[in-house]
Amino acid sequence: MSMVDITSKAETFREATAKGRIRLRAETVKRIIEGKVEKGDPISAAKIAGILAAKNTSNIIPLCHPIPLTNIRVDVRISDSNTVEVESTVKTRAQTGVEMEALVATAVALLTIWDMTKQYEKDSEGQYPYTIVSDIHVVRKVKKSL
Amino acid sequence: MSMVDITSKAETFREATAKGRIRLRAETVKRIIEGKVEKGDPISAAKIAGILAAKNTSNIIPLCHPIPLTNIRVDVRISDSNTVEVESTVKTRAQTGVEMEALVATAVALLTIWDMTKQYEKDSEGQYPYTIVSDIHVVRKVKKSL
Amino acid sequence: MSMVDITSKAETFREATAKGRIRLRAETVKRIIEGKVEKGDPISAAKIAGILAAKNTSNIIPLCHPIPLTNIRVDVRISDSNTVEVESTVKTRAQTGVEMEALVATAVALLTIWDMTKQYEKDSEGQYPYTIVSDIHVVRKVKKSL
Amino acid sequence: MSMVDITSKAETFREATAKGRIRLRAETVKRIIEGKVEKGDPISAAKIAGILAAKNTSNIIPLCHPIPLTNIRVDVRISDSNTVEVESTVKTRAQTGVEMEALVATAVALLTIWDMTKQYEKDSEGQYPYTIVSDIHVVRKVKKSL
Amino acid sequence: MSMVDITSKAETFREATAKGRIRLRAETVKRIIEGKVEKGDPISAAKIAGILAAKNTSNIIPLCHPIPLTNIRVDVRISDSNTVEVESTVKTRAQTGVEMEALVATAVALLTIWDMTKQYEKDSEGQYPYTIVSDIHVVRKVKKSL
Amino acid sequence: MSMVDITSKAETFREATAKGRIRLRAETVKRIIEGKVEKGDPISAAKIAGILAAKNTSNIIPLCHPIPLTNIRVDVRISDSNTVEVESTVKTRAQTGVEMEALVATAVALLTIWDMTKQYEKDSEGQYPYTIVSDIHVVRKVKKSL
Repeated sequence: MSMVDITSKAETFREATAKGRIRLRAETVKRIIEGKVEKGDPISAAKIAGILAAKNTSNIIPLCHPIPLTNIRVDVRISDSNTVEVESTVKTRAQTGVEMEALVATAVALLTIWDMTKQYEKDSEGQYPYTIVSDIHVVRKVKKSL
Repeated sequence: MSMVDITSKAETFREATAKGRIRLRAETVKRIIEGKVEKGDPISAAKIAGILAAKNTSNIIPLCHPIPLTNIRVDVRISDSNTVEVESTVKTRAQTGVEMEALVATAVALLTIWDMTKQYEKDSEGQYPYTIVSDIHVVRKVKKSL
Repeated sequence: MSMVDITSKAETFREATAKGRIRLRAETVKRIIEGKVEKGDPISAAKIAGILAAKNTSNIIPLCHPIPLTNIRVDVRISDSNTVEVESTVKTRAQTGVEMEALVATAVALLTIWDMTKQYEKDSEGQYPYTIVSDIHVVRKVKKSL
Repeated sequence: MSMVDITSKAETFREATAKGRIRLRAETVKRIIEGKVEKGDPISAAKIAGILAAKNTSNIIPLCHPIPLTNIRVDVRISDSNTVEVESTVKTRAQTGVEMEALVATAVALLTIWDMTKQYEKDSEGQYPYTIVSDIHVVRKVKKSL
Repeated sequence: MSMVDITSKAETFREATAKGRIRLRAETVKRIIEGKVEKGDPISAAKIAGILAAKNTSNIIPLCHPIPLTNIRVDVRISDSNTVEVESTVKTRAQTGVEMEALVATAVALLTIWDMTKQYEKDSEGQYPYTIVSDIHVVRKVKKSL
Repeated sequence: MSMVDITSKAETFREATAKGRIRLRAETVKRIIEGKVEKGDPISAAKIAGILAAKNTSNIIPLCHPIPLTNIRVDVRISDSNTVEVESTVKTRAQTGVEMEALVATAVALLTIWDMTKQYEKDSEGQYPYTIVSDIHVVRKVKKSL
């Protein structure tokens, strides 16, 4: 078990974008749009949770390097009547890439949407027959000399 | 934005199981099986990262209640030549359910597998055309009087 | 340096409310009301930051006991053209009070409002001649047998 | 909700000083001076809590950038028979300012003094009619080319 | 990799005491006694760091259960001209023991003493030929029905 | 209480190696070798816990500077029938040394081995008459201009 040694790598500009989605009941998505989610706005909560998680990546993913981040942007959009999409972009000037940060931000933002809306997703027995987080992937990595 | 008030709910036995999977190149899955992943064993790393994340859920998901957990189990298995599955079960005696803990453990374990194997998943331009985390869902919640 | 020993105290219902305020330029308060703060809504950000901080109190204040919280509520309101007020209420069933949790939530929510609006509060030399956080106090503590 | 993008800003020397105060009963301030606070020395505890909090700012304030700090200094002084003052100075070489770090250190140091002395501040009903944290402000920011 | 399942264990009173020591140069111990350590009092710093670490044990040691602690006490004493001893006692009412919490508090308190005095322990080449932390052990565990 | 001010120090290459050991019953060491520890492999767990702890050093040791680390390596080896040794090496390009990071990684890895094997180390009364963590020291520090 060992981290990749990046000691002698040059500092370059790094950017990574990751995306994913959550399937919710149409009624839940309608509530989000109409601002009727009792616990509060899932979109704001998801963005903040995603940004905080990106900054915390090196504590969450064991072999990630702790690196200063210069920008984190988490976008949340309703893509159809049953789907909310999250897209996170992370930037830095560092010796290693930031795709794990973008993935962690995306996954945590999606799970935060779940948590904010869970009372509408549970069936009468407290189960979640419909809710699924899926398609978490890296859209694009960029690496440029400074 | 406000937490659900669980002050007057009775303490009961709670259990939740969540599941998800990651698609990897066949070559990467083969390396996991053969113990040839350079950064170390992705399965051990994923289990530990998942367990630590479950315990940290109330710091990661903004409106989750901080609750003591009595058991966390993260199982990782190779389900076919391109897929690794994670199943996490969390137990507690508390005033609220633990599905978010099981989901966070599962998502973090899956992303840890990504991180451990990422050098084999990137193409020649440093992109990830193949890798996807998906199908994160709650398998089952249990609630029983003490 | 030692924590108070609460081992033999009985578990009771505990509630604490703390309050505080931040003075901002009238132009900044107007922007908050009109939803024109570039970094995003300071009120949502403040509520979430306050709730997360309350849960994190025993890591922030050295001799605080780690206790499970059953409710945290952070209210933010614009009380006049130069002032935003934060009021936080924390509840639990525990062996010790939760006033420090309510105070930490309040202070962190107020500083988050500062951070969200700081570009409008700085003068041309980057100084803050106007912004002040003040009057952080405990409004009320409640303790009742279960 | 999005962080300010500092990717292309130059690294410069940054320093920020923040100040605040807590009003305590004269008897409590006397105990601090005489070293008779049962839980331990509030001044040492406040300094350490403030320094740790400054380092933790990007986890506490949602949109703050994680930046390495090169110095943190938290001074605590008794300014009159009812008042303890905290002044925190934070330095770094970074792409963004450190006033939030200085403010967080100051607020947390003041609340730590509250926590250390709370048994002397409560009245017979467990309320705090006297204790107030106030006047938290930025004294000075400095920015110089390296 | 899996936590011990304590779901069905009864809550009992738990206490654990751990001890350890650090060997320092006589000159360093003399400085501690005379209050001449430039970075500040190592004893206060060690106590606070130990208490905070005990509360953080379930994040530091992967398979530890998160449990509320009702008391933590870290004692630091100079046992001879070259030795500082740390003894930590942790109490709780829980379903599992707290020896790991006492051990973590002790180890972190000892390393904090190292950090506070390191400028006096280094030789002219920046090495530590003398400093050693040793003999970290559990003195006693207690378990009693409530 | 104040951090050392490293603002004007030059960034150089830094490396530190720390070592320590834990004494275990011969039966426990045999179980580790044979892969028969019920909670899971103590060696993987220790490595991951040590790496995570190194990254978390500035939150654990009050006056440590937060610095980005470019490599962390934790080696665990069975040195005789009663002893497991841990050696941790940390590298960075920073303005200050990383010996505290290497020491924290080593101490936490050793305590993780204790935690993973504690059921075999306890006697019939739940005490630990045999287990000791000792000899935690810095093997070597290196500092080179970039």
